[in-house]
Formats: sequence, C-alpha cells, structure tokens
Amino acid sequence: MRIARFSIDGTVGFGVVEGEPTDEDGLVLDIIKGHPFAEFERSGHRVPLKAVRLLPPVLPSKVVAIGRNYAAHARELGNEVPDTPVTFFKPSTSVIGDGDAIRYPSISREVHHEAELAVVIGRMCRDVPRERARDVILGYTCANDITARDVQEREKQWARAKGFDTSCPLGPWIETDVDPADLAIMCTVNGEQRQLGRTSEMVRTVEDLIVHITESMTLLPQDVILTGTPAGVGPLHAGDEVAVSIEGIGTLTNKVVKA
Amino acid sequence: MRIARFSIDGTVGFGVVEGEPTDEDGLVLDIIKGHPFAEFERSGHRVPLKAVRLLPPVLPSKVVAIGRNYAAHARELGNEVPDTPVTFFKPSTSVIGDGDAIRYPSISREVHHEAELAVVIGRMCRDVPRERARDVILGYTCANDITARDVQEREKQWARAKGFDTSCPLGPWIETDVDPADLAIMCTVNGEQRQLGRTSEMVRTVEDLIVHITESMTLLPQDVILTGTPAGVGPLHAGDEVAVSIEGIGTLTNKVVKA
Repeated sequence: MRIARFSIDGTVGFGVVEGEPTDEDGLVLDIIKGHPFAEFERSGHRVPLKAVRLLPPVLPSKVVAIGRNYAAHARELGNEVPDTPVTFFKPSTSVIGDGDAIRYPSISREVHHEAELAVVIGRMCRDVPRERARDVILGYTCANDITARDVQEREKQWARAKGFDTSCPLGPWIETDVDPADLAIMCTVNGEQRQLGRTSEMVRTVEDLIVHITESMTLLPQDVILTGTPAGVGPLHAGDEVAVSIEGIGTLTNKVVKA
Repeated sequence: MRIARFSIDGTVGFGVVEGEPTDEDGLVLDIIKGHPFAEFERSGHRVPLKAVRLLPPVLPSKVVAIGRNYAAHARELGNEVPDTPVTFFKPSTSVIGDGDAIRYPSISREVHHEAELAVVIGRMCRDVPRERARDVILGYTCANDITARDVQEREKQWARAKGFDTSCPLGPWIETDVDPADLAIMCTVNGEQRQLGRTSEMVRTVEDLIVHITESMTLLPQDVILTGTPAGVGPLHAGDEVAVSIEGIGTLTNKVVKA
C-alpha cells in the first residue's frame, strides 16, 4: 500500500495511492479516514493525484541518518567503512516533499545529492531486538540527503552541512509492502543517471540500524531513518532537477533553486 | 519573569513563578491562561511549587548545541577553539526536566556533565541579523549537555554520544528578564563544585550563535540553543545528584540512575 500525505484547497489529508503512472487517467488517491499511524480506513472518496499537492509523507520529530553505509561511496570520498555506523541527525525543519524546491544554501558553494532509502517508523520503540525490527516499521520512502560538501569538510559536526532548510526531501509516499533487502536505488540529475546501487550493498541492514539506534534512543511514530547512499554523489546547481528512484517505491523529484 | 511548565493531577500547564526559594512558604506558581509562546495572562490562581511536578519548560522541535565555546574547556579536552562553532543537534527525545532521572546509557562507561546556558527561541526566524538577535529570544534556562565521552571519542558524529534518551536536562523554568552576557554558571555533583565559569568567557556570544545558526536553518518557537560549557567537565555515576546553577536563572537538579 502506498500512503501519501497531501493538501488540496487548504486541507491536509492522507490517501492511499491507486493505479500506476502508466494508467490513462494517472494515479488516484483514495482519501483516508483516521490516521495512517493509528486506526484508519479508506473512504472510497477518490481524487486524481494530479489535483493535489503532495506533502512530505511524514512529519518526523527527528531524522536519524547513517553515513558511509555503502562501501563504494565511503571509498569515493576517501573514507574507510567505520566500525560503528556514522550517525547524525537532520532536523524537522530540513524536511520537504516531492516537488518542493531545494534552496541552495548561502553557506555553501558545493551542494551534493545523496539518494537514500528512508525507513518510516510506525511505533514508539526503544531497545528493539533484531528479530523484532521489522515490527516497528510502517514502510519506506525515498530520501535525498542533500549535503553541503564544502561545509561538511570544514565543520567537524555536520548539523549545518546536512541540516539546512530543504536538505531532506522525502517522498513521494510511504510504501508499506516492500522488502528493503535488495532494491535498486538510483539518482538522476536532469534525467542523467548519477547514482545507481542496490540496498543489498548496505554494510548494515535496515534491521542492524534499528538495533544500533534504539539501543540509546527512543524512536517515535513518523521518525525516519536514512540508510546511507551508494557511490556516485556529485554537485547540484540552481536549475537542476534531481530525482531519487527506488524499485518498488517510486520517484522523488525536486528542483534546485537559488536561496 | 520565570515561566515554568508543570503537571498536577494529570493536567499540564504553565505558570509564573513568584517568590524566592528562601521564602517561608516557598515558591508559588500563578497559573497562566493562554500559552507563553503566544498570548497569555496570569490567572491569579496560585499553587505551591512543591505541589506540582516541574516539566521541561519547552518541548523543542530541535536543540541546536554548540561545542568548544569556552576556550578553557576546549583546551581541557585537548582541542583548539574552532574557526566556526562546532554545531550539533540533540533530539526532542533527549529532553527531560528538573528532577527527572538521567538514565546511564548502556552504550557508555563514561558519562560527563556539561553545564550550559540554554537560549529559548520565542518566534520562528531565519537569517536573523545580529542587531535583531535578542528579539527572537523568549528567555533562558539551565541545561546539562550530558555526554557519553567514550562514545564521543569513538564515533565521528555525536548523535549517539550526545543524543541518547535523558541526555538533555532543561529547567527549572524560563527566565525572560536576564541579560545573558555575563552570568556565573556552575555545576555541582553531590554538592561539590565541578564547573565554574562566566558566560562572558564564551568565544561566541548568544547573538553570534543565533546569526550562525539561522543563516542556514529556521528556528521555531520552543527551539533551544545550548551555548557551550565552561571547563571542569567530568564523570557522573549512578546515584550522583548533578546540579547546574546559573546566576539570575535558577538551579536544574537531576539524579543519575542505572539504565
């Protein structure tokens, strides 16, 4: 099931996405009664997806992100794969949705795309054992861990390099019925392929990361885990259109604009 | 004015603290109608402070923390004062209030206290010029930037070392009428003085930090800035009582317990 959050005529809601992009009439949203993180049902009231504005599918209290989780990407930036996962936060104020603009930050002259599988947490959890890790997940979406590479190199901690406004595109929706173990993940810029990998190349699996994170901190419903990026990261410029596609989930597209 | 957030009989509210700790009847709360981050007035309905449970005075969407902002502390850990402030996040799930327990995390064997002046943001802001910085501040409170020093040394990014549950005590209340430029700041453990400094020793002032942070990210009402810790940091053990006192604000006291 694909769960989207949207606005139409000033009202915000959730809907279940029906159909395929290739359908003659395009995708349709069956509007949800209730909340997807609690009890809900489909209303049967349908609107065309092209009639709504997609919003970030979640409002996370925090995004917990993992660095250097694909060996080939760690190497391309001259780094080793670390003994414990490199773990950092992106704040709620960095989150945008599909179709929203990535605003080039004034503090940087080198902003990079990083396509990532995002895990959406469905229930409050702490100290999750590996065999229960899948139980705390509601689903998956696409993420772009937008990074000011020059700031990252200058500043020891990455709050500004990876936490600026619009640095965390998430979307287009949450896919609840996909196995994250071996999905193709791709990033294109202006239609040209820049990153291509498979989630099976992750050094730590989704389950490993949930264990790693929750052994010290509580995850809340709507919190998001970014699972690292495959090789091929590179610069974005104002005017570029960047798209993250993950097999079985969908495509997250954002345009880069001047700040 | 001192604004406290509290619970009594299962109800959460805000109140204005009246009196002094030395008063015969102790401190009293004048319960607030409305919300301190918007319109509010005092109700005249008073309860003794000792009859309520103090809560963290804010529910921040994010805590933006600054490292190495006192030169003597940077030196005691063998670090230089950085060219740009070391900037990191502590998540909302790390926040606790006065009197709440700091739970010793299982991932660490060396947890340190770090007494800090906390700035409470009163209004949504971005790209704040220095001369307007005071306008976005509602007030100040005490913070303890509890740090798993061993994890901090092992892990390149500090999300786990400084973001574990209970690692961000804030309180006891927000003081709206104090000048942050030159306040005594002290940390005691079991009544014994461990840290003592003055906010005038900060490498970057409160205004500098607001400019630095908001040039790349939006701050929201209730967001908190931690301004760095003076020299004298050291270990905490289960059973310890740690207190952060700041001149003109108050004292934040927490007990350390086993996880």
